[in-house]
Amino acid sequence: MHKFILIPDSFKGTMSSSEICAVMEQAIRRHVPDAQVCGVPVADGGEGSVDAFLGAVGGEKVDARVQGPWGEDVDAFYGVLPGGVAVIEMAAAAGLPLVGERRSAEQTTTYGVGQLMRLALERGCKKIIMGLGGSATNDGGCGAAAAMGAVFRDDCGQAFVPVGATLSRIDSIDLSGMPKELAGVEIVAMCDIDNPLCGELGAAHVFGPQKGADPAMVELLDAGLAHMAGIVKKDLGRDILSLHGAGAAGGMGGGMVAYFGAQLQMGIETVLDTVGFDALLDGADMVFSGEGKIDFQSLLGKVVIGVARRTKRAGVPLIAVVGDIGDNIDAAYEAGVSAIFSINRVAVPYQQARTRAKNDLALTMDNLMRFFTRMGL
Amino acid sequence: MHKFILIPDSFKGTMSSSEICAVMEQAIRRHVPDAQVCGVPVADGGEGSVDAFLGAVGGEKVDARVQGPWGEDVDAFYGVLPGGVAVIEMAAAAGLPLVGERRSAEQTTTYGVGQLMRLALERGCKKIIMGLGGSATNDGGCGAAAAMGAVFRDDCGQAFVPVGATLSRIDSIDLSGMPKELAGVEIVAMCDIDNPLCGELGAAHVFGPQKGADPAMVELLDAGLAHMAGIVKKDLGRDILSLHGAGAAGGMGGGMVAYFGAQLQMGIETVLDTVGFDALLDGADMVFSGEGKIDFQSLLGKVVIGVARRTKRAGVPLIAVVGDIGDNIDAAYEAGVSAIFSINRVAVPYQQARTRAKNDLALTMDNLMRFFTRMGL
Repeated sequence: MHKFILIPDSFKGTMSSSEICAVMEQAIRRHVPDAQVCGVPVADGGEGSVDAFLGAVGGEKVDARVQGPWGEDVDAFYGVLPGGVAVIEMAAAAGLPLVGERRSAEQTTTYGVGQLMRLALERGCKKIIMGLGGSATNDGGCGAAAAMGAVFRDDCGQAFVPVGATLSRIDSIDLSGMPKELAGVEIVAMCDIDNPLCGELGAAHVFGPQKGADPAMVELLDAGLAHMAGIVKKDLGRDILSLHGAGAAGGMGGGMVAYFGAQLQMGIETVLDTVGFDALLDGADMVFSGEGKIDFQSLLGKVVIGVARRTKRAGVPLIAVVGDIGDNIDAAYEAGVSAIFSINRVAVPYQQARTRAKNDLALTMDNLMRFFTRMGL
Repeated sequence: MHKFILIPDSFKGTMSSSEICAVMEQAIRRHVPDAQVCGVPVADGGEGSVDAFLGAVGGEKVDARVQGPWGEDVDAFYGVLPGGVAVIEMAAAAGLPLVGERRSAEQTTTYGVGQLMRLALERGCKKIIMGLGGSATNDGGCGAAAAMGAVFRDDCGQAFVPVGATLSRIDSIDLSGMPKELAGVEIVAMCDIDNPLCGELGAAHVFGPQKGADPAMVELLDAGLAHMAGIVKKDLGRDILSLHGAGAAGGMGGGMVAYFGAQLQMGIETVLDTVGFDALLDGADMVFSGEGKIDFQSLLGKVVIGVARRTKRAGVPLIAVVGDIGDNIDAAYEAGVSAIFSINRVAVPYQQARTRAKNDLALTMDNLMRFFTRMGL
């Protein structure tokens, strides 16, 4: 029996990874009806990540009422995968869609995200995967840490839960109140960006504006995160100032490392590890991956390249089916991509192409499968 | 050794068939250096047809000084393929580029085309392939016939060489002065269109305007061709009024049948027969064809479909590499196309896509060959 693995990134703004998997599977089944098809929707750490993991390996979606970005109650959730692995998307409790027009990088909190972590711990989970995408916050993860028992004090010894605007009031941090179970739990934060905590490329400068921060507030938030990093260094002995990815999700990347000892990991690596991709490759005839645009940028650690490293090692062909194919893509072949095909089938601009992307993907997959089977698969 | 056959149509206005063959061959050799690659540039009957045939099967290009569309001397040529097959493109002696701005469907002549035929006969050619594309004329082939010895007389018994404007003066046609050798010569006219000689879809109405005819002249030309057909019926016993393709090249399609007993044939069939395509397929691993746009229209007898019928019979895979892929192309697969791939690799409009077509074709071929070799060719 033939075995195909589908592990496409979403085509941003056009099709989700799950949708792409469905289209790909349909095309494969049309030509190889009895094929074994393993679809692995790729979680990117943002909204939909929990569903993607559940879709890939199964498990349970757990509802939970926690605090939202403004401290109000929200209906959130997390996932529990087989083997006691919790998956949390921080957007569920601190995401931009939850604030609507009321964006405020300086006042919103990740407290609810910490509550979700605590619930996962109480349930006995031994590993927590945290998706860092789509946050409305810039609190450096202080809210989440506080929900888990960390105590932040100002220079009067007064305990408080810092938000973006009050990060610079932190005088001391005490993690002794955190649950003991935390020590035995592996925590991984999915993080596809390299941005540092502070500075021109830091959380406040790069992502603050889209969270409602004006230039003056950006400076204040940036200074606050730098101040927090100093106290973290002093009290916890961890250096998050020079950490790649610390600036993800309003400094939550740094906070995950500082307060929870998390490991920041490329999202695709988390996905590949979680689904047991190497074992999945055993006996596979072909892997299909893809992304909205493959180019030099995407060679720096996105889905297709992450998948390629594994398929190359396993000796399984990997076909990338993408939106656009940029220039200078030789490194993709070197990394292990067998061949790359664009779904563009007519010469029209993107605004037109995106409306027909699903059909065009279907047609491209159909032709690849025709080629494949015709060559005596 | 692996054997590939390349037989693409031109991408109109973008790349010639020869250029496409060259790009395809390069991509194949990059991945299968010792491959046997047979490039068959496809003549479409228009300008470049002689070179395409010579490129496909070799032979000699013969220079010839004959009359141009205005009766002036022009440097023309024809091809002699192995086996004594002459190839003439009528555009060489009666083509639009020869008249420049001085277009005149009513005054120009195909006389020089007949002179080329005569030269081919004198050289001992046993078959003549006539390419009907790109003509400036609307003389129903009378000029060519006159050059070969046909005599057209008006109702005063006066011999003359009819042009578009004087077709209706023909009162009788006498072919007795034509060379005796003609009887033993097979004449094939390449003709990809179905247009009848006269009427709304006839030569004058459809093609007259681009040859400089105004509406009144179109009516006069149309009436002239109808009149000619009447005399042809009366004096030669041939009915060209209901003949599909008689309207090609200003009625030259009809004239070829009426005056030379030619067979009108789809151009691709002429090419396939002339290059001995069926024999070429023997031992071939794959055939690559293509065209600017594959759609319902192109399924009605264009290059890819013509090739598909042969490859299907021979059981050789056929990959179509095209510009755009239109809708409703299932008939292509049914006809024998194994799979279809578009060269579009980025979502941009045609005006932009055409400038990068050569690179994009190269990339698409490169990826197809990567796929091909990776799957264990």
